Amino acid sequence: MLKLKEGLKEGGRVVAGGWLASKRVQGDIAFLVLFESGKELQVTIKGDNKRLLEKAEKIREHSSLIVEGTIHLTEKAPRGYEIYPTKIRIVSPAKKIPPFHVYGGNLPSIDKRLDIRAVDLRRVKAMAIFKLRHLLLKSCREFLSKRGFIEVQTSKIISSATEGGAALFPIMYYDKEAFLAQSPQLYKEQLIMAFEKVFEIGPIFRAEPFRTLRHLSEAFSLDVEQAFVDYREIMDLLEELVKYVLTEIANEGKEELKDLRYELEIPEGPIPRITYDQAIEILQGKGIEVNWGDDLGTKELEVLGSEMNGYYFITDWPLSLKPFYIMPKGRLSESFDLMYKDLELSSGGTRIHRKSLLVKRLKEQGLKPKGFDYHLRVFDYGMPPHAGFGLGIDRFMMVITGVNNIREVVLYPRDVRRLIP
Amino acid sequence: MLKLKEGLKEGGRVVAGGWLASKRVQGDIAFLVLFESGKELQVTIKGDNKRLLEKAEKIREHSSLIVEGTIHLTEKAPRGYEIYPTKIRIVSPAKKIPPFHVYGGNLPSIDKRLDIRAVDLRRVKAMAIFKLRHLLLKSCREFLSKRGFIEVQTSKIISSATEGGAALFPIMYYDKEAFLAQSPQLYKEQLIMAFEKVFEIGPIFRAEPFRTLRHLSEAFSLDVEQAFVDYREIMDLLEELVKYVLTEIANEGKEELKDLRYELEIPEGPIPRITYDQAIEILQGKGIEVNWGDDLGTKELEVLGSEMNGYYFITDWPLSLKPFYIMPKGRLSESFDLMYKDLELSSGGTRIHRKSLLVKRLKEQGLKPKGFDYHLRVFDYGMPPHAGFGLGIDRFMMVITGVNNIREVVLYPRDVRRLIP
Repeated sequence: MLKLKEGLKEGGRVVAGGWLASKRVQGDIAFLVLFESGKELQVTIKGDNKRLLEKAEKIREHSSLIVEGTIHLTEKAPRGYEIYPTKIRIVSPAKKIPPFHVYGGNLPSIDKRLDIRAVDLRRVKAMAIFKLRHLLLKSCREFLSKRGFIEVQTSKIISSATEGGAALFPIMYYDKEAFLAQSPQLYKEQLIMAFEKVFEIGPIFRAEPFRTLRHLSEAFSLDVEQAFVDYREIMDLLEELVKYVLTEIANEGKEELKDLRYELEIPEGPIPRITYDQAIEILQGKGIEVNWGDDLGTKELEVLGSEMNGYYFITDWPLSLKPFYIMPKGRLSESFDLMYKDLELSSGGTRIHRKSLLVKRLKEQGLKPKGFDYHLRVFDYGMPPHAGFGLGIDRFMMVITGVNNIREVVLYPRDVRRLIP
Repeated sequence: MLKLKEGLKEGGRVVAGGWLASKRVQGDIAFLVLFESGKELQVTIKGDNKRLLEKAEKIREHSSLIVEGTIHLTEKAPRGYEIYPTKIRIVSPAKKIPPFHVYGGNLPSIDKRLDIRAVDLRRVKAMAIFKLRHLLLKSCREFLSKRGFIEVQTSKIISSATEGGAALFPIMYYDKEAFLAQSPQLYKEQLIMAFEKVFEIGPIFRAEPFRTLRHLSEAFSLDVEQAFVDYREIMDLLEELVKYVLTEIANEGKEELKDLRYELEIPEGPIPRITYDQAIEILQGKGIEVNWGDDLGTKELEVLGSEMNGYYFITDWPLSLKPFYIMPKGRLSESFDLMYKDLELSSGGTRIHRKSLLVKRLKEQGLKPKGFDYHLRVFDYGMPPHAGFGLGIDRFMMVITGVNNIREVVLYPRDVRRLIP
């Protein structure tokens, strides 16, 4: 909270509220740094103000204060000015000291920090991460809205499995069994019938009990779907989107990237596209034992990632590795993954728009068309050809911020072991 | 899909994809209206093109087409031009006819329409509703971002009840019991410790088995929280937000409001604020039997709503009617509801920021502080005073569009009886 009662001028009166990030007493002068709206604000107490100096010495870091005083313009302070206080009120004293510093230094394990996540978020690097996350989502929305996409919200409580039953959290929905949606896939496909271009940004839920640095039980996803395009055109759109948001972040998130001491990588020129077949050849050329038709696991992606570096697409996957709604192309499929090194960021493809083929593919994957009746029935009303992708926002945030644990980019992460706070 | 190969000029070549909304044959001329990107596009077939005229007669409405042809500029067509086709390709024929018209007329029950919701959404009025919803959320984000709020995402899977255990959907979370979040209340309060001003837009889940025109089991909510303000200042913020987004919608959503034949009401001057005590007096003056301390039910709100008309606040509710985290003010509380006629749109207030008082209030409401340990512990680190509100997006959409069933403003509504599609 900052009220500049006479604007920003020398001697102008000011009231500011914030929490104390650091305190430094040098002889008869004291510097308090508050965080106000996530940014530093300097309060300087001079020696002639014995009463406030004594009070300042007793204030614990993290306490919330309201400071009244006057403005002194100075280039040395973070905002180009400091406050000479006439009154300091401790509106909420800190009773404990967290086991980490706001400005860095050695960090306790993420588990220790998550136990008091709200306090952990006061670290400068943590604040920077979530300001960049705000900027990332803002830029995604801007990019897609400008291109005529409409943002939709689909239900997170669903009656049956989207992609075939694996990894769903069951819910008691009144007297029925239901599940948490692991993707808005079928809904977004339906919605292009009316709106042609849609996107959704929201939570997705996957009951995958492994605990790695890049999986969460509750993740955040950007889902895009468009009618009258195929996977090549949708890859172009994704590529443009990635470049747009990275450029926006580089421009608007300068301060935050500096706080993170991280250099953002914006791909120059087209993002390389290799087919699955080429990927297999590369891997075999490196002596990796992998056969055509195998999925690419951790080891394979590490080798491929160090070969390709940066961003790249892997296209035309074997049909057997893709979900039922992906358009076949002989034994291949019209599909792609967007990778950053060994990290899968996005997956997409052309979708099947003919009911008969969709029913055939469901059966081939051992799924019962009857369970998808509510979905299949709208295909009788002129479902156009369409394509789309899902982009993992949390994973994209890992690339943008350079952190190696996905839990650092999520406020309250959920995994097989963690359900609180 | 629309590709103007030589720009928008007379005789320019064009390829367009869309679905057929209406077809009219007058003698030897046929008019097809496609919807392309949610907007009308006219295709005119003239008599000298017998082959296409014959083909057009056979195309069912709702079929998806790709049309190639040339541009003819004319003020009579919806976009200021029509297409003279040289080729029409039926990329996905409609096999069924829905039991409603795209342009209006008698509508079957919402339940019948929801069974094929994706097709129902092709009605002009339904499309208008969801374009306005896109605009509403866009305007909320704009307003709050401009004022320095950061958008956050908190977990929807929680370990315990936010507001005391009522109306929660249980989940099997691996081998533990968990719940779907009925509000991000406690999380957003925690987050102002680091960020000062936060908002979240996302789903909330309430296991309330009644089936009314204004309740859903899965709703969409805007949640705002700010440090160093009280309920009066946050009411001012909400009032500004409401006026901002209504003005944006009036300007940017003109066409859609026209499609809905609905006149948007933007409050002129300040939104009236009455206290709960005054509300009781008004009701008693109208001969309604209501005692101080009673909650205001359907009947009371109907009478009050017709008295107050439009938007108004009810402030300073009895403490006993409010959740544990609301700041007491004697036997009253620092709280408010924003109403539109008899519809509650938003609820907010000053929050308790002292741990000891919060523990006392938990106990008074029969809740166990131990179950809130993960929340209470961060109050030891200088939690500042704060206030906030939650605004029901679906209900606000009812007011903006003038519909009387909340299911009309949600793509895939969920209630005690409906879980599909």
